[in-house]
Amino acid sequence: MLEQLKRDVYEANMDLQRYGLITFTWGNASGIDREQGLFVIKPSGVPYERLTADMMTVMDLKGNKVEGNYAPSSDVKTHLVLYNSFPKIGGIVHTHSLWATSWAQAGTDIPCYGTTHADYFYGSVPCVRNLTKEEIDEDYEYNTGVLIAEYFLNKSGGKSCSDAGDNTEEFEKYIAVPAVLCKNHGPFTWGKSANEAVYHAVVLEKVAEMAAYSKRINPDLQEAPRILQDKHYLRKHGKNAYYGQKGV
Amino acid sequence: MLEQLKRDVYEANMDLQRYGLITFTWGNASGIDREQGLFVIKPSGVPYERLTADMMTVMDLKGNKVEGNYAPSSDVKTHLVLYNSFPKIGGIVHTHSLWATSWAQAGTDIPCYGTTHADYFYGSVPCVRNLTKEEIDEDYEYNTGVLIAEYFLNKSGGKSCSDAGDNTEEFEKYIAVPAVLCKNHGPFTWGKSANEAVYHAVVLEKVAEMAAYSKRINPDLQEAPRILQDKHYLRKHGKNAYYGQKGV
Amino acid sequence: MLEQLKRDVYEANMDLQRYGLITFTWGNASGIDREQGLFVIKPSGVPYERLTADMMTVMDLKGNKVEGNYAPSSDVKTHLVLYNSFPKIGGIVHTHSLWATSWAQAGTDIPCYGTTHADYFYGSVPCVRNLTKEEIDEDYEYNTGVLIAEYFLNKSGGKSCSDAGDNTEEFEKYIAVPAVLCKNHGPFTWGKSANEAVYHAVVLEKVAEMAAYSKRINPDLQEAPRILQDKHYLRKHGKNAYYGQKGV
Amino acid sequence: MLEQLKRDVYEANMDLQRYGLITFTWGNASGIDREQGLFVIKPSGVPYERLTADMMTVMDLKGNKVEGNYAPSSDVKTHLVLYNSFPKIGGIVHTHSLWATSWAQAGTDIPCYGTTHADYFYGSVPCVRNLTKEEIDEDYEYNTGVLIAEYFLNKSGGKSCSDAGDNTEEFEKYIAVPAVLCKNHGPFTWGKSANEAVYHAVVLEKVAEMAAYSKRINPDLQEAPRILQDKHYLRKHGKNAYYGQKGV
Repeated sequence: MLEQLKRDVYEANMDLQRYGLITFTWGNASGIDREQGLFVIKPSGVPYERLTADMMTVMDLKGNKVEGNYAPSSDVKTHLVLYNSFPKIGGIVHTHSLWATSWAQAGTDIPCYGTTHADYFYGSVPCVRNLTKEEIDEDYEYNTGVLIAEYFLNKSGGKSCSDAGDNTEEFEKYIAVPAVLCKNHGPFTWGKSANEAVYHAVVLEKVAEMAAYSKRINPDLQEAPRILQDKHYLRKHGKNAYYGQKGV
Repeated sequence: MLEQLKRDVYEANMDLQRYGLITFTWGNASGIDREQGLFVIKPSGVPYERLTADMMTVMDLKGNKVEGNYAPSSDVKTHLVLYNSFPKIGGIVHTHSLWATSWAQAGTDIPCYGTTHADYFYGSVPCVRNLTKEEIDEDYEYNTGVLIAEYFLNKSGGKSCSDAGDNTEEFEKYIAVPAVLCKNHGPFTWGKSANEAVYHAVVLEKVAEMAAYSKRINPDLQEAPRILQDKHYLRKHGKNAYYGQKGV
Repeated sequence: MLEQLKRDVYEANMDLQRYGLITFTWGNASGIDREQGLFVIKPSGVPYERLTADMMTVMDLKGNKVEGNYAPSSDVKTHLVLYNSFPKIGGIVHTHSLWATSWAQAGTDIPCYGTTHADYFYGSVPCVRNLTKEEIDEDYEYNTGVLIAEYFLNKSGGKSCSDAGDNTEEFEKYIAVPAVLCKNHGPFTWGKSANEAVYHAVVLEKVAEMAAYSKRINPDLQEAPRILQDKHYLRKHGKNAYYGQKGV
Repeated sequence: MLEQLKRDVYEANMDLQRYGLITFTWGNASGIDREQGLFVIKPSGVPYERLTADMMTVMDLKGNKVEGNYAPSSDVKTHLVLYNSFPKIGGIVHTHSLWATSWAQAGTDIPCYGTTHADYFYGSVPCVRNLTKEEIDEDYEYNTGVLIAEYFLNKSGGKSCSDAGDNTEEFEKYIAVPAVLCKNHGPFTWGKSANEAVYHAVVLEKVAEMAAYSKRINPDLQEAPRILQDKHYLRKHGKNAYYGQKGV
């Protein structure tokens, strides 16, 4: 069942470790088969060196385990809500990577200080608020997903665009900024596939690290000019992109 | 004699190096056999590349060397006092790892800024005071152990709970916070086994690093909300834990 | 066609990755054959693990692709302008390396705080301004090259010397300081060959890292004395150099 | 001629690279045979991957090259002066390692903030002043050695003790603090052998890194108490040392 997706999700999880984003078992990647309405996620608390593609857990979009001998990641309900809320995403990643988590602990959005950021995230990477006691008591992991989804969907009236761009009606906010920081916790990223979600997790970590350095070198620095953000985001994304090889 | 424990303690010491917590010979791990009342510890000043399981020194709980061709770690008396004071621990680690030691040199508790911390340490990781001249002259390494033990046992009246939680009567403080910083020196960690003490040493290093980054990004940041600390600590520890695989 | 140069440029690109200056595809190196008036550059957006010498693109100095199955680096026009403006250079590198990019994001020149800097860069490494909206809209990558070239050529009246030295008439500024930061973007470096441009990219990264640390340790620090900068630059460069092996 | 010493010095140079203290060719180690009055030093500017024991240069204590096909390190005269000034040392190292160099660029002594420092350096690691124009013009590398030697020999009247200890008449200052920072340049370290000089270079780098972190975590921190510095230095050094294995 979903053998290729399990292998892809397994590789995405292993890549998180290869890119140095993981300590012990702190992180998880998942991927979805939109046709079947099923997603595959890493089991909870299994050391990476023992992980195999077979251990991946299959879930449906109501939160039921459909297949697998292992309990899914403790963050499975957050993934569930995001898949249900963001119809165009195919994969999700959560880590406690050092720099992104440090910004989350600081409770601060990551401003766009340069083109490395603007190449992938169109505007600030937001840090969403703490959950209330009621939200935690009711269902911590589920409500984490709800908080993220509401932030990205409501803020700009549903079809939304980034804070950054003027000419960005073609991008929904959760497409334009495929990453979020949960205050005092850590980052989630997503993408068209589990693999792209991993890619965005790596970018986020680099961007978070450089933003901290830049701010320290020049405490008065400002965000990169909007026109430069537009230029870089749009040379890589959307209908006028020209970065990379055509058709690749 | 205690061959399995010697191998476990040897591996724990080698793991400290594999995790990048060790420069030269600066660190030591030990483990105890509670039934026999004997503990096994790394010899003093032997380079890691020459270390073997056979070189581990066996000590009794009065501080006598019971077996071994090598002098035990110079910190052996600190381990001795902690084993005698904390009856539920099975292993102890000391390192000079970069970030934990930097906080110790700064003389500052590590506040709980996020869930990575709260998953393992229930409240701040304390930094205990310098020893007095009298305590150093009398017995430096022994009194280091006494200072740590008194901090963890007295502070909350013996059965104690963490600074963080309200609903934590099930946890003694030294169980809830298995780590300490000794001012101007470095960290000790402990756990159910030498292996778990190593695990906590790694967590402490990551937590110390991220706390320093977070504080620098936002000098006004506050500790994570207590309800979030409760949620994370209790989803991994105690009778209602649900992280990981059941029975694993 | 230009097989040796393609191999050299390929190796220069791979070296960028080996030295840890590259994340994903973020960077490019090129090299020029001055006799034929052709330069060779990395293709756009191809992962390093798939790159081969055959994939390198050959360009002429009017910006036409002369050979190659792949689209050249999106920064090809910046390389083009620099080759046309700096007649003595043989190679160019662009990266998003962490520390150099962080200074670029901070919008700050890197002052010469020590001999590591002075051994290779004779004076500050300048951070050039953002392009205007008109310059971006007209031709972003081309005008990035123009901005850099004008900075280095105009500033000292064409034959120029470094800010640092008094006795430096023998050095043109773009020779004396083979590196620049583009504000909110990242560094470009150059040299006698693609290989030397890589070398300078590595030096720049180390210099940028140490300058940030030094400034943090002592916020009031000043640039290194000019006489020390002269001494170190001139013991490695120019007619009285004595570092290294003669004739090597 | 001096084959074993050449191999030792070669290995010491390679160790500098293995410990991550070296970029390109920036560093050098030497060792001396006191009976023959000859020292062996790395050649200037030869890449580490091409270095062999045979390439080491043999020098006498008047600064004449006695054997070798290569020009000695450009810092050879600094080594020469230190060997002539510090009769008990057997090896010298110079690097541009990141953290020690950053403190040198900051122009600041490294205070003793903890036991990692006190275990090897008895008091602050000093940062000596810039050379004057006259000293640079006369003989830069030679006068660098003179400056260092005078600092360590004069300051405490020749037989000297550390700033730190009261009970340290048994230690000359250059024995008690086997490291120095040259302002706006970088560190030199020394020891009983080339190998021990490398060891001290590694310790200095870790100590420099942690001191910077500690100062950032707590800008008001003070040096470690003198009694703690005494305890740690003297448990490893001098007639009452008890760290490590007896007779090893």
